[in-house]
Amino acid sequence: MIYLDNASTTKPSKKAIEAANSAFSDFGNPSSLHRLGMVAEKIIKEARLTVSEKLSVDEKNIFFTSGGTESNNTAILGYALKNQKNGRHLVTTKIEHPSVLEPFKYLEKQGFSVTYLGVSKDGVISLDEFENALTEDTIMVSVMAVNNETGVIQPIDKLKAIMQKKSPKAVLHSDCVQAFCKIPLHPKKWGVDMLSVSGHKIHALKGTGALYIAENVHLDPIILGGGQEKGIRSGTENTAGIAAFSAAIKDIKPISTDKRSELIAKITAKIPDVKVNGTAENSGYVLNVSFLGIKAEILLHSLEAKGIYVSTGSACSSNKPQPSHVLTAMGVGRENIEGAIRFSFCDDDFDSDYVVSVLAEEARKIRKYVR
Amino acid sequence: MIYLDNASTTKPSKKAIEAANSAFSDFGNPSSLHRLGMVAEKIIKEARLTVSEKLSVDEKNIFFTSGGTESNNTAILGYALKNQKNGRHLVTTKIEHPSVLEPFKYLEKQGFSVTYLGVSKDGVISLDEFENALTEDTIMVSVMAVNNETGVIQPIDKLKAIMQKKSPKAVLHSDCVQAFCKIPLHPKKWGVDMLSVSGHKIHALKGTGALYIAENVHLDPIILGGGQEKGIRSGTENTAGIAAFSAAIKDIKPISTDKRSELIAKITAKIPDVKVNGTAENSGYVLNVSFLGIKAEILLHSLEAKGIYVSTGSACSSNKPQPSHVLTAMGVGRENIEGAIRFSFCDDDFDSDYVVSVLAEEARKIRKYVR
Repeated sequence: MIYLDNASTTKPSKKAIEAANSAFSDFGNPSSLHRLGMVAEKIIKEARLTVSEKLSVDEKNIFFTSGGTESNNTAILGYALKNQKNGRHLVTTKIEHPSVLEPFKYLEKQGFSVTYLGVSKDGVISLDEFENALTEDTIMVSVMAVNNETGVIQPIDKLKAIMQKKSPKAVLHSDCVQAFCKIPLHPKKWGVDMLSVSGHKIHALKGTGALYIAENVHLDPIILGGGQEKGIRSGTENTAGIAAFSAAIKDIKPISTDKRSELIAKITAKIPDVKVNGTAENSGYVLNVSFLGIKAEILLHSLEAKGIYVSTGSACSSNKPQPSHVLTAMGVGRENIEGAIRFSFCDDDFDSDYVVSVLAEEARKIRKYVR
Repeated sequence: MIYLDNASTTKPSKKAIEAANSAFSDFGNPSSLHRLGMVAEKIIKEARLTVSEKLSVDEKNIFFTSGGTESNNTAILGYALKNQKNGRHLVTTKIEHPSVLEPFKYLEKQGFSVTYLGVSKDGVISLDEFENALTEDTIMVSVMAVNNETGVIQPIDKLKAIMQKKSPKAVLHSDCVQAFCKIPLHPKKWGVDMLSVSGHKIHALKGTGALYIAENVHLDPIILGGGQEKGIRSGTENTAGIAAFSAAIKDIKPISTDKRSELIAKITAKIPDVKVNGTAENSGYVLNVSFLGIKAEILLHSLEAKGIYVSTGSACSSNKPQPSHVLTAMGVGRENIEGAIRFSFCDDDFDSDYVVSVLAEEARKIRKYVR
């Protein structure tokens, strides 16, 4: 099996699985007053430290959630609804993940005004356009660090300086689900006020994520109850998931070779009529390629039959038969969108010659059949 | 170790752990189009069937969440906010879990009017009082099936008939976190429209729950994004947690002996100045006893030193130094509340003679020291 769908989800690491199983034994409720509760609480405390160190922030600013989607919802809905007295204008981009876009659409229905920034052909927002979008009424900006469909890095390090000129009271949120443990993240240095991460994209388990919330940033929780996570996220903590998250962070190795450039070189050398989508600075973990004249889903299943697993776009929208909103925003034509395959990597090596030879052969067959 | 804090959380069963570990290998994203995605999707489909069969409902009415707290929030906030045009009055009880009470408090701030029903000395709501609380403006009722602090069963099977007379358009939600797999639940027969359950209370894992939503009951999701769980709960599904939930449900055995009555008999025979809280019909899984003149937390730690784990109340509020709202609603006096210990059971047997002898000895020592 050659698994090149790591942007959808990753294989849990041995260390993550060990940590989860260990927490299944230390099964107490972190809120319990007895020793079993203390042990569970300690697991969470250690994990909070691990996440905070990875982001160079204080552990008290890290809050565990059930995943990236919940982190994004908490940040966006929680901040906007809490702070709407200060302004009702919000700025985000057209290429965000649905877990960002849908909360913004909800806020529009609640009377907020939202500016959705476009992107260039190579997949990156324009800082000039960003500056023009900001107003005195802007209270929040949300821009992802790395796009999930293309791997393109957005200039989140440059946004706060512009915001301070135009919208000094606005806070900056960044969906870093595809960036965490993949590119360096410095929320404090960059002035990022809220930052979302997810476990299952970095070889931890599904069902765990975290949200960084800077000092003096106040938001209303979206899940209410027992007041866990200082009231930001009620509900008994998923101790095993949190333990696995910590173990995965400690264990993860940065991608050691430029698998993306290697694959681009081999694909473009061997296969005619292909186009790389997302040519701006890239995380190196995602490669989006259009195979002209091919329906991506057919190619996906042909590759699968040869043990190669890829995606036609982001997994969480792949069940919906609508063209990628990310590629659409980049101005990619309909036919190129229909033929777009996403390869996404982790540090595991794979036989790129085999992948490209299968790709070439299957693309040739499909094109012959279709034409 | 004698673990009598099963209402806080339970030890994951072997079958649940096996199912989780198996899902760590079948690690695909359920939304992925390739085989790994299908395998993950199949795990979820099977689990949905397991939960639905346990509740005698159709599998399409079961939605997975991150736990009981999220299920309660989704049902209460999601339904009230979606249907407020039909009325702004809600009914619940004073003895609900914080994950029910806090959403109602939030809705009060949004302009809803909420009636909080009291309970009798033995811990149960009054059907007359319930009938009197209902109005034409009532759109939702939420009453728990089994109280988490006392184990008292509420008459949720009798509520819908009364509602149909007084508030025909109102829906009925029940927090069944402490009831699921413990007492028979028949939401369809009883007219329960929404029903919350949790995994970690029945030997599955923390971080997984489900919500039953009847046909034609419409609510707004509280977490938005990729549209998983038919849009009721976005976010990549916690496949391993869901698999473990299913395995735990299939594996769980009903409590085989009346551990509660046995413990009551032995405690009252051996220890003076004790009072059982919650004398109405009980699930048999929870025993709440006040040891007069004793601070419960001191007794808890004394028991812990002898390997016996109990709680002073519900775990999720035990970190907060405020008297139990459940015992307060039952009219239990301050001193009895301060001395209240919760023993909560699962099917595992334990040496009740040892527990009671330790209790008697430690209670005697503490009372001697205090008096």
